[in-house]
Amino acid sequence: MKISVVKNILEANQRIAEENRRRFFENRVMVINLMSSPGAGKTSLLERTIQSLKNEIRVGVIEGDIQSTYDAERIGQTGVPVVQINTGGACHLDSNMVEEALRNLDIERLDLLFIENVGNLVCPAEFNLGEDFKTMILSVTEGDDKPLKYPLMFHESSVLLINKIDLLPFCDCNPDLIEERALKVNPRLKIFRVSCRTGEGLDRWVNWLRNQVKKRE
Amino acid sequence: MKISVVKNILEANQRIAEENRRRFFENRVMVINLMSSPGAGKTSLLERTIQSLKNEIRVGVIEGDIQSTYDAERIGQTGVPVVQINTGGACHLDSNMVEEALRNLDIERLDLLFIENVGNLVCPAEFNLGEDFKTMILSVTEGDDKPLKYPLMFHESSVLLINKIDLLPFCDCNPDLIEERALKVNPRLKIFRVSCRTGEGLDRWVNWLRNQVKKRE
Repeated sequence: MKISVVKNILEANQRIAEENRRRFFENRVMVINLMSSPGAGKTSLLERTIQSLKNEIRVGVIEGDIQSTYDAERIGQTGVPVVQINTGGACHLDSNMVEEALRNLDIERLDLLFIENVGNLVCPAEFNLGEDFKTMILSVTEGDDKPLKYPLMFHESSVLLINKIDLLPFCDCNPDLIEERALKVNPRLKIFRVSCRTGEGLDRWVNWLRNQVKKRE
Repeated sequence: MKISVVKNILEANQRIAEENRRRFFENRVMVINLMSSPGAGKTSLLERTIQSLKNEIRVGVIEGDIQSTYDAERIGQTGVPVVQINTGGACHLDSNMVEEALRNLDIERLDLLFIENVGNLVCPAEFNLGEDFKTMILSVTEGDDKPLKYPLMFHESSVLLINKIDLLPFCDCNPDLIEERALKVNPRLKIFRVSCRTGEGLDRWVNWLRNQVKKRE
């Protein structure tokens, strides 16, 4: 009984995700679903990435939070269009919430749309939103055992950003071990090591993103 | 329809949580439900706390993870009894999982039982397990905005441990702001600032725990 309820929810989600995907494709907008634990650096990554790209690429953001508009206000300061979703308790975004948020975004005027998911290393991985790339952030302060303990998100993601590498000297975390364990779960994972605080390594990520958007034009 | 399903799940959980609570009470074992984001330091806190208390108090641990027995193996090295729950995908423990784990624990021989929840700042807060105290950890690397964005867990917890204070000089995080915002959500929250890496501040937490266990004897 419980399983069939869950199955129905995921099937309904997938149907709307496919509609979202078709709309994104028709409007030639590339979509990144950005996921991580709380506080791993999703919003900081977006701030840095948008500053680097906004003069050449038209960027928009959908911000997902349980409540508050704190992150949308931070992103709004970069000058790009942003829409806040408040899930009202739910621990992940679903495709229906994104579909509603799209009513407040001119996607025909965007090249790149970031969807910042609720901070949660578990459930967001189960819900497709219609994105091109699931992208996850793991901060080194979370420890190098995370691919062993939360494998689904590593499995579903196309890109892994290992963030806060400026803190490596002060943590008991081996980033080589993160990579090795993550690649065991998902051998096709594209990995970048970055610090959103110092900016280290972000150029490689930004170049990769720029190339993905250009391919589509 | 969706709401009634969720309501039924929470009601069924509450019934079994009350049975667990009765068993804990009859066996005079104090129970802590330990919750946090992934990598905030739950297992490290348990290792430190158990080392400090195990010669005077009989401690046991239930480890909750989606998969793997990594944390149970770490805790097992302290010499105390430990049982691993693998949720097989679920993002939180429920009272039924705890009830099953109790079959493999001699609770009449324990004074203090820690239940380490799945790393998730959202859903674990909704599911009572029969514990005496919900205790949460927030690491300073997660940022001082977390009480604003994930208020339920701060609201439901009796104790907040602010961990990784050794990293404060290298983070853009104001711990006074964490306390102020957390107390606004929950004015009765008992707060400790600790570093499970250096040991700083752990004596206050351990003394508090010891006093709670002694009160019950």
